[in-house]
Amino acid sequence: MKYTLSVIVENHSGVLSKISGLFSRRSFNIDSLAVGVTSNPAISRITIVANGDEYVVEQLEKQLNKLIPVIKVKRLVEGEYVSRELLLIKVGCNSQKRDEIMRIAELMSAKVADVANSSITLEFSGSQERIDTLVDLLKPYGLKEIVRTGTVAIEKGQGEAYHSGYNDRNKKADK
Amino acid sequence: MKYTLSVIVENHSGVLSKISGLFSRRSFNIDSLAVGVTSNPAISRITIVANGDEYVVEQLEKQLNKLIPVIKVKRLVEGEYVSRELLLIKVGCNSQKRDEIMRIAELMSAKVADVANSSITLEFSGSQERIDTLVDLLKPYGLKEIVRTGTVAIEKGQGEAYHSGYNDRNKKADK
Repeated sequence: MKYTLSVIVENHSGVLSKISGLFSRRSFNIDSLAVGVTSNPAISRITIVANGDEYVVEQLEKQLNKLIPVIKVKRLVEGEYVSRELLLIKVGCNSQKRDEIMRIAELMSAKVADVANSSITLEFSGSQERIDTLVDLLKPYGLKEIVRTGTVAIEKGQGEAYHSGYNDRNKKADK
Repeated sequence: MKYTLSVIVENHSGVLSKISGLFSRRSFNIDSLAVGVTSNPAISRITIVANGDEYVVEQLEKQLNKLIPVIKVKRLVEGEYVSRELLLIKVGCNSQKRDEIMRIAELMSAKVADVANSSITLEFSGSQERIDTLVDLLKPYGLKEIVRTGTVAIEKGQGEAYHSGYNDRNKKADK
């Protein structure tokens, strides 16, 4: 089964190595991982998508929670979050094919990130399925390069996995 | 100075831990890191943005190249690549403020990812500066949550950091 974990951590060197070490010791392969800053530069959020059985994921959550630089771990529940990915895709093209590619870009609401004599680079954000669709549509033109961020996710509705102004570290210490 | 490294690796458990371990042993803090699949499911690309001096980055590049699961390391040169990030941002709003937020979204070409009674979630891809601008514009409405992928980058023009059909592993073995 696929799991999405949202992990709020202190922004230190070594945090990522501790977290990825936990996963690798359990031979738990990470499908995608994205580390981004939050509104507080001292705090980062790591979104991890991984495959595994329920028991292993529970163990991982517990062990992540024990790591000192980890402030909060949240497992996102299927259907209750929005997940998105970003794709940069470079496609080979001549001036004739360029129009066709531009029509696909328009159809999918992809932006043009760069144009050169014999290639065009599109920028597209969306769900994994939509990204796969765009890649499939562009395949016949010859893909020169594909760069994808990992998946990031946010809870639907009012829910907040982590509020930047909120001091979870103290909350943890209170327990 | 800020460096962007594009690292092509075999998609194993343990790869990320090896790479992040290299950075942490040198107390090299990673600003952002994104792991995404390529068109070949056995191969992933890790884009790393980090701060450091020239000497340390050169050493890191060499050491990365020595790691078995690393197929290729490329340092991207300022001005010769396009870099983008993805932002999911949840803003508090009532029905009155919603219109104002929608106007900002339109102005910046951000998409609506989710709407609830008292919040709205926007999805936006762009350069780091454009993302910072959108965050600043939305701040007065009350930010509930911010999720950012790390930066991903692609070379401008025809250049290819890595071609999916290309077997660099064999190339490396040939040397």
